[in-house]
Order: sequence, then structure tokens, then C-alpha cells
Amino acid sequence: QKNHKVVLFPGHGIGPEISQAVCDIFAATKVPIDWEHHEIYTKPINEAGDLIKEESLQAVINYKWGLKGPFATPIGKGYRSLNVTMRKKLNLFANVRPCKSLAGVKTPYSNVDLVTIRENTEGEYSGLEHAVVPGVVENLKIISQPACENIARYAFEFARKNNRKKVVACHKAGVMKKGDGLFINTCKKISSEYPDIEYTEEQIDTVCMKLSKNPEVFDVMVMPNLYGDIVSDLCAGLIGGLGLTASGNISHTCAVYEAVHGTAPDIAGQNKANPTALLLSGVMMLKAMGLQKEGFAIEEAVTKTLSEGKFLTGDLGGRATTTDYTKAVIGHINL
Amino acid sequence: QKNHKVVLFPGHGIGPEISQAVCDIFAATKVPIDWEHHEIYTKPINEAGDLIKEESLQAVINYKWGLKGPFATPIGKGYRSLNVTMRKKLNLFANVRPCKSLAGVKTPYSNVDLVTIRENTEGEYSGLEHAVVPGVVENLKIISQPACENIARYAFEFARKNNRKKVVACHKAGVMKKGDGLFINTCKKISSEYPDIEYTEEQIDTVCMKLSKNPEVFDVMVMPNLYGDIVSDLCAGLIGGLGLTASGNISHTCAVYEAVHGTAPDIAGQNKANPTALLLSGVMMLKAMGLQKEGFAIEEAVTKTLSEGKFLTGDLGGRATTTDYTKAVIGHINL
Ligand SMILES: CC(C)[C@H](C(=O)O)[C@@H](O)C(=O)O
Ligand SMILES: CC(C)[C@H](C(=O)O)[C@@H](O)C(=O)O
Repeated sequence: QKNHKVVLFPGHGIGPEISQAVCDIFAATKVPIDWEHHEIYTKPINEAGDLIKEESLQAVINYKWGLKGPFATPIGKGYRSLNVTMRKKLNLFANVRPCKSLAGVKTPYSNVDLVTIRENTEGEYSGLEHAVVPGVVENLKIISQPACENIARYAFEFARKNNRKKVVACHKAGVMKKGDGLFINTCKKISSEYPDIEYTEEQIDTVCMKLSKNPEVFDVMVMPNLYGDIVSDLCAGLIGGLGLTASGNISHTCAVYEAVHGTAPDIAGQNKANPTALLLSGVMMLKAMGLQKEGFAIEEAVTKTLSEGKFLTGDLGGRATTTDYTKAVIGHINL
Repeated sequence: QKNHKVVLFPGHGIGPEISQAVCDIFAATKVPIDWEHHEIYTKPINEAGDLIKEESLQAVINYKWGLKGPFATPIGKGYRSLNVTMRKKLNLFANVRPCKSLAGVKTPYSNVDLVTIRENTEGEYSGLEHAVVPGVVENLKIISQPACENIARYAFEFARKNNRKKVVACHKAGVMKKGDGLFINTCKKISSEYPDIEYTEEQIDTVCMKLSKNPEVFDVMVMPNLYGDIVSDLCAGLIGGLGLTASGNISHTCAVYEAVHGTAPDIAGQNKANPTALLLSGVMMLKAMGLQKEGFAIEEAVTKTLSEGKFLTGDLGGRATTTDYTKAVIGHINL
């Protein structure tokens, strides 16, 4: 059996240290992965304003797998958002963000177990906008049937594969009758192919109200781009923040997993960063590769390390270094 | 001194009972108000699909004040959203929703004290949408300089008048560079006229993450229409839900205060409903009328009734009737 090749974007700030932690933990499980390091640039590298080389995108296509650390966004204009570029160029049409309460991380909510599935390529992120007259800007939000079908089917397949019982489509079709209307109508149509999954629809404002009041009511949540951006962060807040949450961007043929937190320049290079978000994103990747055993082993080791509470990094109120935490996780791996 | 005339829209479902409760409590304070009842229709009353008579809108303009209970939305198409119609026709450009933890109502967070100030007339609510080709819908989000100026100025004036220290402008200008860019640039410009108020900017996803993790970090939050729809409900969830939160829609010359919860058809007419949201919306109105004394007296009576916990309605886990609760509030009024 050949090793999987994975394109690793360590990124900036704390990116390299937490990437190293992930590589060390993966190595400890002897998971059959070879990393190929690629760079994200802090300044545009061409006229189009790209922050990533074409060959790096091509590598993701060739190897099928990418893992991406946090990266610094250039100041000012003249660049293309790296995330948006990757999603469009690689057709990473689904963004998946599971949020599950972690033993050992105290938050007001202890029974959170949510998955946000976000349409990742269109909606408010079309990039189409212009000033109609000076002082009046028009942004276009695009909703297309094929993209709705892709994301709806992905959500139901995800629910089925992961033994989840419910999918809720989140929308504002009372206001955006045609656009969000197309979204829910498509979800509803696809839902009929999945009679084993309970399907409901809920307005995005109500969703957010219920999430902050009573997050247990939801399970898998599927929605257009911007709502997904908002809801996935809201859910991350419920379990302790972006430093603990995994994210995967999925196309039909490749995927890029990522930490969605910042580069934390204040602690960069000081061996203080918490690698959990990137690590759990890596675990998502392992499971998608079919390396369930290693994936679950690492996940359990993380849970044990966090709930034990002996080696917590500063963000969780502890004093452990990144290396301490990494060693603790490795020590808890049971294969 | 002449009485204030207020247009009262009792609405549907539990609307009439909670409106009665508000009238009774107001009467107990001898506040100088005369109510004029107006109807909201459950079916369109004209070709345009309106759910409200032109003369009712005119009454709000004439008297300057309106109070609106929950109302049923027609099933199917062919009607115009009542809220959106009112906001546009009366130019109710600001929606103000304060959310403050209420003693006696247990929620995950006890120190919430937030105010969402939402641009109420444009953005994603422009109503402009069309299918470009079959299966591809374009929604227009409109952001205009005058509307941004209005809402920004309103937010800073609100902060100053209410002794609040901070205003944060919430946006997604990294993605909607021109539209949301215009919004934050305008907020920033206006902020320079209010050096006494701390001004910051924050991405809407980050805002929602922080709200669910650590809601104390914010104070007054100002934002475009859809974000305000979402954030105000999120904040309501933090303090116990829409049954407890006030809302005001403000123009330069008139205002409509409202309960934003549903009509609760399952308990309608049974003397079980909680009138708090409509009552606190009425209190906002009293304060805006300059009737501070009565406003604060009612507010305090509500707090006492809730924290005493003897006469709670079913939604808060109690067994009191609407009438019991109303009497308890009246009993606590200290003028
Ligand atoms: C960086 C930004 C463009 C991005 C987004 O809004 O999608 C980020 O917030 C995310 O959620 O991945
Ligand atoms: C009923 C609906 C159009 C409305 C809105 O989205 O503005 C409601 O959710 C609100 O917040 O007042």
C-alpha cells in the first residue's frame, strides 16, 4: 500500500509550530502519509493578486489532500482572498465544520454536537459588486440549482455516513424568496431521497436564536455560504472558540482541511500555541482517507489530554508548551 | 399637557391578550396615553399584497407612535411582508434591540447587556431578485451612503444618550469589499464626531463567535440589515429568547415598537401568554416619549416580578396566567 501524499500549508505566525505538532502526532501513529510543504504568500505574487502558486493548487488536485494552517492576510487592497480563491479554483463546494463539546473545556454549553455544512462557492461570495451611482453599491448574491443540489446531497450523505438523524436547511426565504427559495426547494427535493433522515427548514435568525439558547435542538445544518460563515463561527464559540474546531473544504475529487483561527502573532515562535484545531482538521482528513483507526486514536488522545487538564496551553488557561501538549497527546495514543 | 396617541396593533394569536396586559399595566401608572386600535390582516387586502391599511400607516405618521403585537404571516405567496412594508413606507431606518440579562431568568450567561442597532431599510432586504437563467437566481444587496450615515449616526447618538461607551460596526468587508466597505467607512467617518465613544470594527462571523463565547465584550453593535436580523436573535437567545426582548423601529419622525416573537397559536386565548416582550417594547416607547419615570417604574416592576419568581408564565417554567403576571407587575409598580 502506497503512502498518501498531503500538501501541507504551514502558513504564518503560529502556523509552522502547530503544523509541526500535527506532523509529530501523525508520525507517532505511523499513519502512511508523506507531507509536501507549500507556501502561502503574505504579498500578491502576480497581477491577479494571488497569494498562492498555481503549482500548489495543482499539487492539491494531484494528491487529493491538503492541510492548511492559519495565514496572514495582506494589509490593503490588490489581493485575492486565499480561502475564496482555493474554494473556487478547486471547486471545494462544501465546507464542513463539526462542533462537539470537548470534555475538559468549560463552556456554558456542555452538550453541543453540531455540524455546519456550508455551500462554499457562491452566494454572497460571488465577488460581483459595483457602485451603481456614487454612494450606492450593489452586491450580487448568486444561488444556483446545481450548487444547491451538490451541497444538499453532500449534507444528506454526510448525515447518513455519520449516523446522524436530522438535517435542517437554514435560510431567509421569507425575504429572499427566489434565491433562498431555490435553496430550500432544492434541499427539500433531495431530502425525499433520504427518508431515513429527518428534514426540516428553519429561518437563519431563528437558527441563531436557538443555537444560543438551546443548541441541542440541531444536528446537521446545511446552508448558503454567508450563513454558514456566521453559523460555523457561532457554533465554534459554543464549544470554546476557533482554536478547538476542525474544518474541511471538500470537492468531488480533492479536499483541503484547515485551522480557521488566526496566526496569533503575539505568541508566534514561542512554543505556546494550541495545535488542536489543526490536529482535529487532520483527523477529519484521516477519516476521509479511510484511516479511521488512526483518526479515532488521535481524537481520543486529544479528548484525554484535554479532560485530564495537566498539559493545557495558555488559551485554555494552562501553562503547557506546544511541545508538552504534543507529547501528552502522543502519550495517550492507543493503537 | 395633552395625552400621547399611540396606534396599537394587537395582532393575532396571543397578540390581543398581551396587548391588553400592556394596556392594563400602563393604565396603572396613569401614563398619559390614548390607544387607537388598528388591524393587521391575515390575508392581502389589495392587489399589491398589503396586510395593513394605508390609513393605519398614516395614523402612525400622524401620532408618531405605534406598538405592535405578534401577527400571523399568510401561507403561500402574493403578500408583502408586513414588517418590511412598514419599515420601508414609514422609513423606519433603525431597528433597536436591547438585550440585558433578566434576574430570575436562568440562561448560560448572566452578564449580557447588548444593544443591536440594525439598518432596517436596505441591504439584502431590497426585494430585488430575479432568475438570470432558469436555476440561477441573483439577489441584490444594496448599501447606500445615506442609509449608512443615518444608522451610524443613530448608533453613536444612542450610545451617548444611554451612557454607553463602545460602538462596534459589524461587517464582512473582506468579502463584500465595496458594499460592506462603504458601510464601515461611513461608520468610521461618523465615529470621528464622537470621540467620547470607543469605535471598533469586527467581522460578522467573529462577532457571532464572540457573542456565543463571551458576550460581555460588546456594548452597542451597529450593522447592515441581514446581519442585524441574525445578531438580534442570537442576542435574544442569550437572555432567554424572543419572549423577553424589546424592539423598536425608528424613523426621524415616528417609531413602531414591537414584540418580535410569534403568535403562539397553541396557547392563544388561554390566558397563558407572557406579555414581557411587548411590555418592554412599550417601555422603550415611554422612554422615547420622555416618560422616563413611568418607563423605569414598569421596567423595575418586571425585574422584581421575574426575580421573585412567584408569578411566572409557562414559557419560563411557571404556572401563572397572563392576568396573574400582569397583576404582579402592577403590584410592584412604585411611582
Ligand atoms: C477569510 C474569510 C474569507 C473566510 C470566509 O468568510 O469564508 C473565513 O471567515 C472562513 O470562514 O473561512
Ligand atoms: C419577519 C421578517 C421579515 C423579519 C425580518 O427578517 O426582518 C423578522 O425576522 C424581524 O427580525 O423583524
